[in-house]
Amino acid sequence: MAEAATRRRGRGGGGAARRAERTAVRIETARFIERNIPNLELLNEEALQIIEANAETVLEEIGVNFPENPEALERWRQAGAMVEGERVRLPKGLARKLCATAPGRFTQHARNPERNVEIGGRSLVLAPVYGPPFVRDEHGRRYATMEDFRKFVKLGYMSKWLHHSGGTVCEPTDVPVNKRHLDMLHAHMTLSDKPFMGSVTEPSRAQDSVEMCEILFGKEFVAENTVMTSLININSPLTFDNVMMGALEVYARSNQACIISPFIVGGAMAPVSVAGTLTQVLAEVLAGVAYSQLIRPGAPVIFGAFVTSIDMNSGAPTFGTPEASQILYGAGQLARRLGLPFRSGGGLCGSKLPDAQAAYESANTLNAALLGGVNFMLHACGWLEGGLVASFEKFVLDADQLGALHKMAAGVAMDENGQGMDALREVGPGGHYLGCAHTQANFKDAFWRTEVLDYKPFETWDEEGARDSRALASLRVQKLLDTYQQPALDPAIAEALEAYVRQKKESMSDAFI
Amino acid sequence: MAEAATRRRGRGGGGAARRAERTAVRIETARFIERNIPNLELLNEEALQIIEANAETVLEEIGVNFPENPEALERWRQAGAMVEGERVRLPKGLARKLCATAPGRFTQHARNPERNVEIGGRSLVLAPVYGPPFVRDEHGRRYATMEDFRKFVKLGYMSKWLHHSGGTVCEPTDVPVNKRHLDMLHAHMTLSDKPFMGSVTEPSRAQDSVEMCEILFGKEFVAENTVMTSLININSPLTFDNVMMGALEVYARSNQACIISPFIVGGAMAPVSVAGTLTQVLAEVLAGVAYSQLIRPGAPVIFGAFVTSIDMNSGAPTFGTPEASQILYGAGQLARRLGLPFRSGGGLCGSKLPDAQAAYESANTLNAALLGGVNFMLHACGWLEGGLVASFEKFVLDADQLGALHKMAAGVAMDENGQGMDALREVGPGGHYLGCAHTQANFKDAFWRTEVLDYKPFETWDEEGARDSRALASLRVQKLLDTYQQPALDPAIAEALEAYVRQKKESMSDAFI
Repeated sequence: MAEAATRRRGRGGGGAARRAERTAVRIETARFIERNIPNLELLNEEALQIIEANAETVLEEIGVNFPENPEALERWRQAGAMVEGERVRLPKGLARKLCATAPGRFTQHARNPERNVEIGGRSLVLAPVYGPPFVRDEHGRRYATMEDFRKFVKLGYMSKWLHHSGGTVCEPTDVPVNKRHLDMLHAHMTLSDKPFMGSVTEPSRAQDSVEMCEILFGKEFVAENTVMTSLININSPLTFDNVMMGALEVYARSNQACIISPFIVGGAMAPVSVAGTLTQVLAEVLAGVAYSQLIRPGAPVIFGAFVTSIDMNSGAPTFGTPEASQILYGAGQLARRLGLPFRSGGGLCGSKLPDAQAAYESANTLNAALLGGVNFMLHACGWLEGGLVASFEKFVLDADQLGALHKMAAGVAMDENGQGMDALREVGPGGHYLGCAHTQANFKDAFWRTEVLDYKPFETWDEEGARDSRALASLRVQKLLDTYQQPALDPAIAEALEAYVRQKKESMSDAFI
Repeated sequence: MAEAATRRRGRGGGGAARRAERTAVRIETARFIERNIPNLELLNEEALQIIEANAETVLEEIGVNFPENPEALERWRQAGAMVEGERVRLPKGLARKLCATAPGRFTQHARNPERNVEIGGRSLVLAPVYGPPFVRDEHGRRYATMEDFRKFVKLGYMSKWLHHSGGTVCEPTDVPVNKRHLDMLHAHMTLSDKPFMGSVTEPSRAQDSVEMCEILFGKEFVAENTVMTSLININSPLTFDNVMMGALEVYARSNQACIISPFIVGGAMAPVSVAGTLTQVLAEVLAGVAYSQLIRPGAPVIFGAFVTSIDMNSGAPTFGTPEASQILYGAGQLARRLGLPFRSGGGLCGSKLPDAQAAYESANTLNAALLGGVNFMLHACGWLEGGLVASFEKFVLDADQLGALHKMAAGVAMDENGQGMDALREVGPGGHYLGCAHTQANFKDAFWRTEVLDYKPFETWDEEGARDSRALASLRVQKLLDTYQQPALDPAIAEALEAYVRQKKESMSDAFI
């Protein structure tokens, strides 16, 4: 990576770049999580085998649809599938065989090589909320704008426990639909130096994403390395949208990573049972990943599972529920057996406000994602109201909890210092550990520490206004935005990116749907 | 149990009792949880063996203190320990050998046999908050009264997912210290029919607790069965308070259950490291449980671990932290290897309000307790501000989440209906599951459903006042209290209990410290 970084820096006026880097404030970002604790293996071997056999049955007997996509159908036919109309039926074992060329882990490069992430194995990479058309701040809920988008990218850059800048952290509804991706990518590339996601809403926008990366990283570098991880949703049940597939094709051809992700509200888009839903998830991912490997064997992909349950009375999607956790655990096991990186979880909630409901639901999902072996966690912070809203306050509250996940994942130190027998001997019955040598030597890093929650004595807290978590979070949002400083970027690259966005925009008329 | 119930009912005017039972409203209480999912085994075999060996070293080299308790010291001497002053040193293996007579599981009987709980094995019994001197409701924070206490007992009785009425759900500060236990036990015995805890603040109060149980259950029944589980805290580090030990002696002699529980703020009362703290926890529990078995071999006990971490800047205890979770998981493994029921966890938090902080912290602990194999969970609901405050709103919010634990613990149904292949075949690609036969047959029980959180459409929620979880919880508290109806109790027993409390109170002058 040192070589690559030098090569990139060399492209445009090293002197200016070096000057910019010297004056930049250094923002601390934790390395992605490498788990040193076991996963919870919820399902036993028999259950997993039943689900795997059933998924093969689904693919062979029921099949999947690739509507309005004759090229895809032709690819499937040549690969040995049975194609009738837009229905593709896969003989048992075919999808799994095709999936075998997908890598078990891959590196997504960031423009700052220190921010590179490994996706797969025992890693956990944390990325912010994706997709909300609304934002909520201390003044309430409103449509998101590009200014909001930039603020979220800045918050993500300033968040120590967030490894990834994400993608559509909110929908900038004040920018025409066909031009949004340009502004969004530009923000990720210039306001942060963490890795990011590409556009998937049109194959041409995926192509623009690749071209902008070629400016940022250098054409040769992009040809050789994965610099984007993008979100390809499956139209569950069992349907592969031709627009999404078009974006997948662009990315797979460019060796860029895709999350192949069933998007399921259980009971509506999948069977109402956990095992039935897992069967459908596996069948869908098998077909989607297999298709990616037909485009380019070896293209990096992630086994995705965005699954929630439904409130059977109101039809509303619900989050942080036990069924969603069970599906997360099971899907993780299926992904590991398939040898693929796994995406799920995040700070998901149905609540309208960053209140107790939001936190219970989010914590339930965050804990399940950590223990369920998730490798890439989208929506790790900022998600509110079933994903309709990106919340500034929830962003910093969740991002703080992500620090706890790091500490939990690090496991328990069992070396001599960790065993602490010196402390036990020094203090003895009835003593106090605060002043002992072992405590003095270890207290700084012994315990995870919040940056936003309140531990003050009651009287102090009361005198300071008896603020709840939402109010404290609001202060932290402001503090982070006030102290934000843009990471250095080679001015020649910055200029080239701006020119690309300007020219692209000028070549299009505005579209708002 | 049918026989025992009949016997008890027979004691005082069966006709009146039967009449009372006929007119009573039936309150639904879930059966205690029997896990159908695996535990998370956080520590590996090597780590566990190191901790176990270190705990034996602590007991032999450092020892434990039994201050102002010559009888206890004499018991230890006779059992083979080395006693110097108040220090007791146990040769390696002695404590573990003595612990072997403690049962791996036991039944705690309730006056309503349907509410009996099994403690140990794969069970999880949920009990409310214990000990807060303050309460918080929608009007704020104030000292707790006996009226508050009664309200919490009523809420516990009305809470479907709570199996146990608990003990000191709050400290009734308007009742003299030496008489509180009488009113508290009377409330548990008459306002609820769930199992409860006895007093531990003086050996004489433990004796009163046994005598009141003899009135409620019958003397013979109490002699033969466990009808109380009481909380014996260890004065960590490594010190056994003679008052607590006196209460333990009363209960063990009566074959009543005790939780032997280190009470540790890590970094202050135990080493600042997870492994060091686990070593101390194990040493303390080994000594405490061994002592209980010296009083009466076979007396039921629970391996307790109330461990939290400390904010090294302010010295405040913190809750829901990753270190606390790691200790919980590790302690559970140690308890299972010792063959004892395990107590830990609960909805612990440091927050002053039932806000997002409270919920993150509580959910972190609740999830760890479920997956860490806890058998008896004290503080499962209502805990606020580091245990200083019992919160009405948090009580119902936490109690609601306990329902999610039940569903999670039930595991994944893998029978034909659970596999849902009929649904997948019926619906197919692009279809919708809401109307299919499998969904119609299963939707009622398919998903856990909250009784307090909000799933409404934004517009409805907004029109109804944009209420947060705290406001919704406040409404639920009122609804539960408004619909509360006292469970039936044989009038002769009720009268005898009242007479006992009255006579006991009359025999004492008031004490307020």
